[in-house]
Amino acid sequence: MTDRTRVGRLADQQIVDRAALYALLDGQILAHVALVVEGNPLIIPLAFARDGDSVLIHGSTGGGLLRLAAAGSGLGLSVTALDGLVYARSLFDSSMNYRSVVIYGVPTVVPPKEKERALLVLSERLMPGRSEEVRPMTRRELAATIVLCIPLTEVSMKTRSGAPSEAVDDGENHAVWAGVVPVVTGWGAPSASPLTAHGTEVPASVRRH
Amino acid sequence: MTDRTRVGRLADQQIVDRAALYALLDGQILAHVALVVEGNPLIIPLAFARDGDSVLIHGSTGGGLLRLAAAGSGLGLSVTALDGLVYARSLFDSSMNYRSVVIYGVPTVVPPKEKERALLVLSERLMPGRSEEVRPMTRRELAATIVLCIPLTEVSMKTRSGAPSEAVDDGENHAVWAGVVPVVTGWGAPSASPLTAHGTEVPASVRRH
Repeated sequence: MTDRTRVGRLADQQIVDRAALYALLDGQILAHVALVVEGNPLIIPLAFARDGDSVLIHGSTGGGLLRLAAAGSGLGLSVTALDGLVYARSLFDSSMNYRSVVIYGVPTVVPPKEKERALLVLSERLMPGRSEEVRPMTRRELAATIVLCIPLTEVSMKTRSGAPSEAVDDGENHAVWAGVVPVVTGWGAPSASPLTAHGTEVPASVRRH
Repeated sequence: MTDRTRVGRLADQQIVDRAALYALLDGQILAHVALVVEGNPLIIPLAFARDGDSVLIHGSTGGGLLRLAAAGSGLGLSVTALDGLVYARSLFDSSMNYRSVVIYGVPTVVPPKEKERALLVLSERLMPGRSEEVRPMTRRELAATIVLCIPLTEVSMKTRSGAPSEAVDDGENHAVWAGVVPVVTGWGAPSASPLTAHGTEVPASVRRH
């Protein structure tokens, strides 16, 4: 933890719990990555996957932002799970339940020999089992893809959970309902592509959702 | 649109369609905000709301990042909706369906006289109707809150939708199922707080979810 990742104001919302950190990262597939380019902030959404005590992101070797990051720029990567809306008896005390992590670091480029394994880690995270249903990656595809690795070293995790704070009486009307409305995320029914032959069985990697 | 928001590589994934932009922003409540502090990227998740042709974010006047932004630093704000996983017949062509916007700008601080209206816009977006169920904001609460406004001027929107690309034959096995697994997001059953009296009716602002 550094000055940048030490949460000053709301110390009780900061936790550094490896199991909770891994659970958050392993339950999400979308990250937002921030970079500095010529003094200006840049931000992009990306898929990611945890690989042990690092996270992996990937993209085209032609993509500008990952190329910049590969050149040694530091980046910030944030993953957030929105868990619920917190209805207090004042707007001021109303809030959101969430789990959020921000990771800062200088990414390293995964070297060619380790690239296929890293891409399989990403694939397993996003579509578990899919790699066994489709053909292997080609050398051309591997060459066209860059994979970056960011260690889980400079990490700040913040969470809020549970009911609204009800301790302080700020003139609220206590006859009003207060509580939490949870966010629920899941998967809908799979929809086959036009060229998928009628009657093709939905494979295990899709049924798993 | 500027150099920073012109999508070079995947021009067909960039759209500048006001209706689609508003639909994305009005369907999400979580943004990620990137700032530059002493040359380093900082990124934080925040609730946001669209207000006409701007977006609003808010926080405590004691919060460091919003104070920095209020001091005239440029920021990037990204809102992303993950719509589905796209199963192609190769890992390389597999993808995600999403709608994503990145907004760059120097935020302005909403002045005291307009702050209550701005906070009501945020409240209506997050918990429609709630402001009529609870007591009004107090002067102390208004003074403790900073609201920033970022115009929807420098905006880049990218989307992917529909089936996997099946045009090019890269040696895929065409007997394999391909298609899309949609992401479904909704609200779970509301859960009352400990001090909510038994039998208190769930209010309209909660039933609306």
